[in-house]
Order: sequence, then structure tokens, then C-alpha cells
Amino acid sequence: MATQQIGFDPQAFRAALGTFTTGVTIITSQGEDGAPVGITANSFNSVSLNPPLVLWSLSKQARSLPVFSNGKHWNVHVLSIEQEKLSSRFATQGEDKFAEVELDNGISDAPLLQDCTARFQCRTAFQYEGGDHVIFVGEVLAFDHSDRAPLAFQSGQYALATRKPRSELRLATTPPPPECSYTEDLLGYLLGRSHYQVLNLLRQLLSNQQLDEQAFFVLAVLSIRDNLSLDELNTFVSYTGHVVTLAGMRFLERQGLVAIEGNAAQLRFVLTANGRELSLQQVALAKVVEEDLIGKLGEADAQALKVLLKRLIVVSDPGLPDLWAPR
Amino acid sequence: MATQQIGFDPQAFRAALGTFTTGVTIITSQGEDGAPVGITANSFNSVSLNPPLVLWSLSKQARSLPVFSNGKHWNVHVLSIEQEKLSSRFATQGEDKFAEVELDNGISDAPLLQDCTARFQCRTAFQYEGGDHVIFVGEVLAFDHSDRAPLAFQSGQYALATRKPRSELRLATTPPPPECSYTEDLLGYLLGRSHYQVLNLLRQLLSNQQLDEQAFFVLAVLSIRDNLSLDELNTFVSYTGHVVTLAGMRFLERQGLVAIEGNAAQLRFVLTANGRELSLQQVALAKVVEEDLIGKLGEADAQALKVLLKRLIVVSDPGLPDLWAPR
Repeated sequence: MATQQIGFDPQAFRAALGTFTTGVTIITSQGEDGAPVGITANSFNSVSLNPPLVLWSLSKQARSLPVFSNGKHWNVHVLSIEQEKLSSRFATQGEDKFAEVELDNGISDAPLLQDCTARFQCRTAFQYEGGDHVIFVGEVLAFDHSDRAPLAFQSGQYALATRKPRSELRLATTPPPPECSYTEDLLGYLLGRSHYQVLNLLRQLLSNQQLDEQAFFVLAVLSIRDNLSLDELNTFVSYTGHVVTLAGMRFLERQGLVAIEGNAAQLRFVLTANGRELSLQQVALAKVVEEDLIGKLGEADAQALKVLLKRLIVVSDPGLPDLWAPR
Repeated sequence: MATQQIGFDPQAFRAALGTFTTGVTIITSQGEDGAPVGITANSFNSVSLNPPLVLWSLSKQARSLPVFSNGKHWNVHVLSIEQEKLSSRFATQGEDKFAEVELDNGISDAPLLQDCTARFQCRTAFQYEGGDHVIFVGEVLAFDHSDRAPLAFQSGQYALATRKPRSELRLATTPPPPECSYTEDLLGYLLGRSHYQVLNLLRQLLSNQQLDEQAFFVLAVLSIRDNLSLDELNTFVSYTGHVVTLAGMRFLERQGLVAIEGNAAQLRFVLTANGRELSLQQVALAKVVEEDLIGKLGEADAQALKVLLKRLIVVSDPGLPDLWAPR
């Protein structure tokens, strides 16, 4: 952690500042000519509860500076995870930022955006000198707050904040004894248990189809890549630990779900219309399970979980064949 | 999203402000008497690059206000995810905050904490009026920056920020065709694939033991709760989809890993010393796999993933028996 003297490396200074995580806001006002202005800013912060004050800072180079300097009113919108595109749009100069953006009526003429996590309608209380920026301190005249998950920003990238439970989340009612090497904190245990539990919910829904898990995987693979040999099928299924046999495929053939083509030396398996229909039903059931879980987890945590599982898949990847690749 | 008029509900105002995600900092200075002061603050933000300025605000009620008002120098420490306890200590009045805290030598007398994500050594440039707070703007005289993952804060809780990839992370080289219902974004697919891949890494390490996955689970369960009947054993293993049979247990008995006790009506299974030893070896191998993956994911993402998997386990829990519970 070598100390840097200032003045040498603005990029390093930016990088160090960027490690401080922030939310993302859009701040809007209206010019004297009636034209709306708005910019994306992460320099927002709260200042005072009584009187209610917030602040943010704006580059002296910003084209909207005169509007904010001369105007009295501006609105701060804390953006939700659904508003990443809006954030990028308001961070880019020259776009018609307000095109097709629906507005609410606020207490001033400053544009009031919809579907945010929180909004603060402000009147300038102070403008302070801040080097190459102007610091705007605003009195909050009105605010509101939804339950939409807020977007975060860290080191130049959008981020999803996973809040930590105030006390450690324990699955077992009793912690394992200290001498016990197996704990519920092992990633392998958590992955296995969550996977099997989710699979179990799906199994309950699938149970009236009289098909097992292996059949589920086989139909899924064939619905993505049809007309495979047994070897090819196993290439795609093997990561699940299942080994598909000819006998298993004959069973699916008797169920009318799979047709077997080619000669004995090179049999190929093709989904029948019934097989395709059943596979679609299965994925629909999988989506029912998924929607329910995402509802319970919350959209932000579900998105974060997917990003992290993809990272885990990449770093643990033994080089699985690409199921979706063209051939 | 009903608009609140200010002055009515400070708690609602706090809640709305809290949705703006922040990092966590400790800001330190030294009194004229030589005593160090330090407080946890999330009101930090960057202001200007040239000159390099940052700001934060301090309650006018804070006991450390005179030190910061009269002093010239203070240091901002952006805390890492390992420094949650330090954050809580510096957020609590009356504790001897600096007890046993190792310090680095800085360019001023202000205490310079170790092991942070980033540090900014500042000299007060401006003090501004901010309602019930004072806004301190500091010129950054020196800074440094480590690769420790930064701690975040949102809605009153510590948080882990999962940065989103700039472009969507795709596992397959080709996106599935639009008409394809199975996509790699299904939570069930991501859980299954990541679980099986991690299990596969473990299997490779376990392979020279000539034992299968089921034996791994059986030994793990018995090492946590010994002396179980077949029914009890299956209660704990069933979530994995495996069904343990008497024949399977007889096989482990022949390997000298399990002893079978009791009469035919009520057989009970007990780990032998060899079985316990092997199970310990297995968990050690599992930890090797885990450490390697955590190293590749990064500590912050690994922690976030564990928190999220625990949440998923809770919301998908079909009521698994508590393996670690006393009996």
C-alpha cells in the first residue's frame, strides 16, 4: 500500500476514490427557457436531518451548470436496479435525455422521474466552492420512497448490494461444535443443499409426469440440440453426474417422447412432437419455481446470485461443451 | 410512492436517505492534547480532481467536533469487508477506539489505520454550514489504495457489492435462439451447473479413494451425528437425492469405514476410526477446492455468494432436519 503523492497520477486518484461504493442518482432541474436538464451523479449524500439537507457536486465544466446555479429547485432521484439504462442515458452528453420519459407532477417545475427507489425534491440552500466542482446543498421540501431495490456503483461499474444480515444467518438452530470440520459455511454444502432443494421443488411439480430427473435433462438437451448420438448426448449431460444409457433412451421412446433414428452402429435421438411439448411444459414448471423463489429473494438478490453463480461457473469450468453453439 | 411533506416523519426521511448505497469510512484526527479521535462516517464523497478535494459531514453534536474544527489534518479510511468490526467500534461512543489498533506513519499527526481499501490524507480546505452538521472539505495531500474489497452500507445494514460485468456475462459462446425456452439464465440451470462443476472438482480429488459421492455424504453425516439407523441416515441424506441402502452400508463396513451395531430389527451405524479419518481427509479436500475457488472469485464475491445461497436455502426450505441440533 505505497502512499502516492498527489499531482502525479490522476488516474490512480480516481481509482482510489472509486473504491468508495455509492448509489446512483439522476438530478434534474428546469432552465429559465423551460427546457429540462438532468445528469447522472453519484456524488450525492445526506447532510442534515433537521433542517433536512442533502448535497451533491457538479463539475464547473457541465453544460447544465448555469441552470442549476440560477435555478432554485432540483430533484434527486435515487435509481433502482431497473434504471441502469436511464442512468447511462443521463450520463451521456447530447442525447435527448427526456425523450419518452414519463414524468410525475412535483412541487416545482423540475422534472420528477418515475419508478425510482427514492426521490428528494429540493430547493438550493447553499452553493459552495469545491475546486473544479460546485457543491450544491439543498433543503428537502418533499420526498418519497418505494420498495424498489437501489442500484449501486463501485470502481466504475454498476453493482448490486447484498445486505448482510445483522446477525449471522444460521441454517441450523445450533452451531456445530468447534471440533466439527463440516460446517454449513462450506460453499460445497451451500451449493449442494440449495441446488437439491430447488430441484426438489421442481420434482414435486414434475412428479405427476412419471419421469425422473435424468429424463428431464435428456429432454432439455434435445430441445436445445436435437438429433444427437448417445455419446453426444452424454457430453452435454455428463456434468450432471448422470450417464444416459440406450436402455434409458428406449424407455423414452416407448413413452413416445423420443424417436430413434439411424442404424445400429450410429443411433441418433430426436424429440417427438410430444417430447418437445413435454419439455416445454417442464421448462414452464421450472420457471414457476424460479419466479416464486425470485419473489421471495427479491429482484436485487436474485440478480446478484445469478451474476455470482455465473462467475463461479467460469472459475470452476472444466471446459463444458457449448450447448447453444451453432454446428 | 406517496410524496411525504417534510417535518412529519424523520424516520421515513432517514429510511429514504438510507436507500442511497454508500461505502463506509473511518475519519481520524488528533486533538491538540495529542489524543486521537476517530468516527465512522458514510457521508464521504469525492468533490474535485484538480485540486483534489473530498468531503464529509459531521454532526454538530459530535464530541469530536472541536478536534476536527480546530485541527488542520484528518485522514479518511475507506474500509474493507474485513473491517466491519472496526467500523462498529468507531461508530460507538465511549469505547477506547484505538486500543490495540496498529497505525502507520502518515504525513501528519492524524492516526493512519492499516489494512484499508483506500486512504486519503487531507488538510481542511473549507468548513461549510450544513444544518445540524458541518461539511468538511479537505484537500487530499496523499492517498493510497489496496486491492482489498470495500465494505458497503445500505438501508442501515452492511452490504457486499457485487459488481456487474460491463457486458453481460455469457457462459455459452452463442446466445440461444429467441424461441428457445431453456436459457442459461435459469436459476435452476446455474445452480445445477455450478454445483455439479464444484462437485466434479472434488470428485477428481476424491477419485483415488475408490468411494462414490454417496459414501462421501454418508461419512459426512456420520462424522457430524454418529450412531444412526438407516432411516435416520436417510433423513439427513435424502435432500441430496441419494437413497442409502443396507447393501451400501455393508460395503462401507467391508471397507472398514463403518461398524454396524445392534440387532437386525434396529441396526445402527457408527464411524470407525478409519472412517472418521477418511471423512476428515475428505473435508480437507473439499476445503482445498473451496479455497481455490474463493481465491478465484475474490473474498467479497465469495461472501456475497454464501449469504445469497443461505437466503435461497431459507426460502426454498422444505423443512430439512437440523443435522447439527443436539439430541
